[in-house]
Amino acid sequence: MKQNGLFITFEGPEGAGKTTVISKLYDRLKAENKEVVLTREPGGIQIAEKIRTVILDTDNIEMDAKTEALLYAAARRQHLVEKVIPALNSGSIVLCDRFIDSSLAYQGYARGLGIDEVLQINQFAIENTMPDLTVFFDISPAEGLLRIARNNEREMNRLDKENISFHEKVYEGYHELIQRYPNRIIKTDARLPEKDVIENVWRIVRPRLM
Amino acid sequence: MKQNGLFITFEGPEGAGKTTVISKLYDRLKAENKEVVLTREPGGIQIAEKIRTVILDTDNIEMDAKTEALLYAAARRQHLVEKVIPALNSGSIVLCDRFIDSSLAYQGYARGLGIDEVLQINQFAIENTMPDLTVFFDISPAEGLLRIARNNEREMNRLDKENISFHEKVYEGYHELIQRYPNRIIKTDARLPEKDVIENVWRIVRPRLM
Repeated sequence: MKQNGLFITFEGPEGAGKTTVISKLYDRLKAENKEVVLTREPGGIQIAEKIRTVILDTDNIEMDAKTEALLYAAARRQHLVEKVIPALNSGSIVLCDRFIDSSLAYQGYARGLGIDEVLQINQFAIENTMPDLTVFFDISPAEGLLRIARNNEREMNRLDKENISFHEKVYEGYHELIQRYPNRIIKTDARLPEKDVIENVWRIVRPRLM
Repeated sequence: MKQNGLFITFEGPEGAGKTTVISKLYDRLKAENKEVVLTREPGGIQIAEKIRTVILDTDNIEMDAKTEALLYAAARRQHLVEKVIPALNSGSIVLCDRFIDSSLAYQGYARGLGIDEVLQINQFAIENTMPDLTVFFDISPAEGLLRIARNNEREMNRLDKENISFHEKVYEGYHELIQRYPNRIIKTDARLPEKDVIENVWRIVRPRLM
């Protein structure tokens, strides 16, 4: 798969404030006349949306962890093939809210399936389309969840409802990944005021622009 | 995963007559007072049914082959965990209409993803629960499809509508698998009259019973 764009992903605990910051980053890149695509899985891709409905359905309390990991990999594949790869091939910057590291941290580490095992099925899904850069929004899970609880705009889904110790494990998982991919994953302090987070993310992204 | 039952799967081209023969085999095992479970993916498992709806939806014409393979593996996992493994653990004979070899023949071989690649994601899904015995219903794809076309009872789904050369490749894929797993996969001639197929399948299964 030929590619000449720039693939940037954003990761972090629930409630870390990724969405707002990514949207500001998008505006800034647009203002600099960059070709930029803002997306998140399932990204409006019809098949991937349907898969996500199955994953997040709060009725599906019996879902096995491996089933969940395979479904995420399937939705990821379809979103990648239909949206991310065409954009990268046309030279765009692609900003993606969550990607492979979410699966590695949530299913691989926190659910105990193993980072390597989950990496393997995701490599089947994404082939060699790893992010060029991943920004990790660093905030403790307790603080992130508190932000969600205070914010009535968003309904809680099946994953939000997991107990705090699950989210603590996700956070540990992310730190495993930062050690594993020190060149790709860059941490930013997400507890700072929003405008500072935006500025810091800009400082991380800017040097990567052509 | 502890198991002491017997896991038998049935494979073959569309229209090979598997369903009828398996149901007769089920009756015969019941008549011999065996504990037996008759199933097929997704087997009434709610999550797996929902996944299957996504796979077979004729609107989803843009589905990527790897997305499809991951979805089959996800549905297989859930069906296995909720239904097959509990039955095997209680000592039952499990008769399953299609299983891993369908993915290896359809996605691995016919769609060109590679048998080994598709095997790998399926091993993630099934761990070590490979069938003890697999009966392959041998009939040419052209003959099988003709049977379906003549039989108005069944509506054609997305897979049936693939062209004949796809089904020819599936058939070739199955023969690759028979060479790869000569002790597990046993062929039976599915062109014979139904009562002869039933008798021949019984001759294959009987020696495996405890």
